[in-house]
Amino acid sequence: MNGLTIEKMSIGQSASFGKTISEADVYKFAGITGDFNPAHVNEVVAADGMFKGRIAHGMLGAGLISTVLGMYLPGPGTIYLKQDLKFTAPVRFGDTITATCTVKEIFAEKNRAVLETVVVNQNGDVVISGEAIVMPPKG
Amino acid sequence: MNGLTIEKMSIGQSASFGKTISEADVYKFAGITGDFNPAHVNEVVAADGMFKGRIAHGMLGAGLISTVLGMYLPGPGTIYLKQDLKFTAPVRFGDTITATCTVKEIFAEKNRAVLETVVVNQNGDVVISGEAIVMPPKG
Amino acid sequence: MNGLTIEKMSIGQSASFGKTISEADVYKFAGITGDFNPAHVNEVVAADGMFKGRIAHGMLGAGLISTVLGMYLPGPGTIYLKQDLKFTAPVRFGDTITATCTVKEIFAEKNRAVLETVVVNQNGDVVISGEAIVMPPKG
Amino acid sequence: MNGLTIEKMSIGQSASFGKTISEADVYKFAGITGDFNPAHVNEVVAADGMFKGRIAHGMLGAGLISTVLGMYLPGPGTIYLKQDLKFTAPVRFGDTITATCTVKEIFAEKNRAVLETVVVNQNGDVVISGEAIVMPPKG
Repeated sequence: MNGLTIEKMSIGQSASFGKTISEADVYKFAGITGDFNPAHVNEVVAADGMFKGRIAHGMLGAGLISTVLGMYLPGPGTIYLKQDLKFTAPVRFGDTITATCTVKEIFAEKNRAVLETVVVNQNGDVVISGEAIVMPPKG
Repeated sequence: MNGLTIEKMSIGQSASFGKTISEADVYKFAGITGDFNPAHVNEVVAADGMFKGRIAHGMLGAGLISTVLGMYLPGPGTIYLKQDLKFTAPVRFGDTITATCTVKEIFAEKNRAVLETVVVNQNGDVVISGEAIVMPPKG
Repeated sequence: MNGLTIEKMSIGQSASFGKTISEADVYKFAGITGDFNPAHVNEVVAADGMFKGRIAHGMLGAGLISTVLGMYLPGPGTIYLKQDLKFTAPVRFGDTITATCTVKEIFAEKNRAVLETVVVNQNGDVVISGEAIVMPPKG
Repeated sequence: MNGLTIEKMSIGQSASFGKTISEADVYKFAGITGDFNPAHVNEVVAADGMFKGRIAHGMLGAGLISTVLGMYLPGPGTIYLKQDLKFTAPVRFGDTITATCTVKEIFAEKNRAVLETVVVNQNGDVVISGEAIVMPPKG
């Protein structure tokens, strides 16, 4: 159940996790965070808005980045330090999004790794881009 | 249901949203994102780890920032463009965390606002700090 | 709230429970167990797979067998000892599946009953077959 | 996102997944399957029963076996054919259970693998034992 230590990480390593986002996912996310912005939970208001219908919370998509970091690369034992997020396109109900994290820089002496973090939809459109800094687990 | 337009925003304006984070919140968040990192859902493994017990996902705390932006400041109609997050302390089950967003810069001609985004726990410890860029709703 | 004692059971007795399986059921099941196999939650990957779309977890269907045993036959107070499961066909989102348990053997002196356990879909296709051994409640 | 083919499997290979089982997990499981046996959701009745309090559904624990098979060994693309389950001890709310699957037999020409499947709690007590037969993904 242990993730990769900094010694086992290398530039270019990458891991992904993808999921089809359901209406129920978005509603549960609203129920946890209290973000009941009509863009997410009110079809009548959202249909009139910029995206012509309800969309998922940006942070729900960002949550899949956390899944990759905490489950696969570096994996269990990782401490999440920083995340930059740029929300570049909406995620609609029924979209299948995939988060991919790729190791970009390694600072072994400080036990820090920088990963590029990108979330794309089923059409290959980037919905979130950004960068994470993590502290991989120690041996 | 409409949020503030850029004209109604001013430097220093702020809004907050707080919630006690339950075990059920964290488990539902894992259930949405697939992030079953033992740090969040395995008490035996987590008790041996850096935080001596299970903690909430960082993105769950970040979700409360999105709640403030999408519900209160600027509010409904806001487009979320960017978010920087620095995870500075763990959120434990039962902690009450409060996200506060404060307007820092306004670019009226580009319809962009920059907000400082901070999440603190019941002891006043900062658990997340960062900055958001949003596009407020048009009139 | 009490189930049948072994004395009230007889060979050939049977009980059923059925439900239409929703996307939300499957997503919640993934959220409880951590089984985010793309076969269950990733429509793009699943569409390319053997079943041409997302399917329910086998254990979700098996859960309906447990419902029959624990709720109806023998019912509350039953101790579940063994279950054999053969997964014979996929359960798709929107399928209505019905679990039926039929008493096959009774060992009164040991307070054990063997039941045949079958789950079928709306077309009569068997999706799970198998056998359960239970200890009915004492009087 | 692909699991191991039969060629990459070997006798003795093993993988695990563990989780602390919350009251909310059990309640959601009841909500999906309809198994509202008082042993799981009625503390007053359950306190008088054999286990002196509410316990998780056996199939919830079995669900973690499915997580190991579908996520890790063999992993995505696996077809689940058979599962034998022996429920040997109760899982109480707050117990941390870990499912471990170990490859026991490989039938390469038929693309079938047999795995021993065991679920233990935080004290090392076996709560479920059994055996699975799966069809690993093709290359």
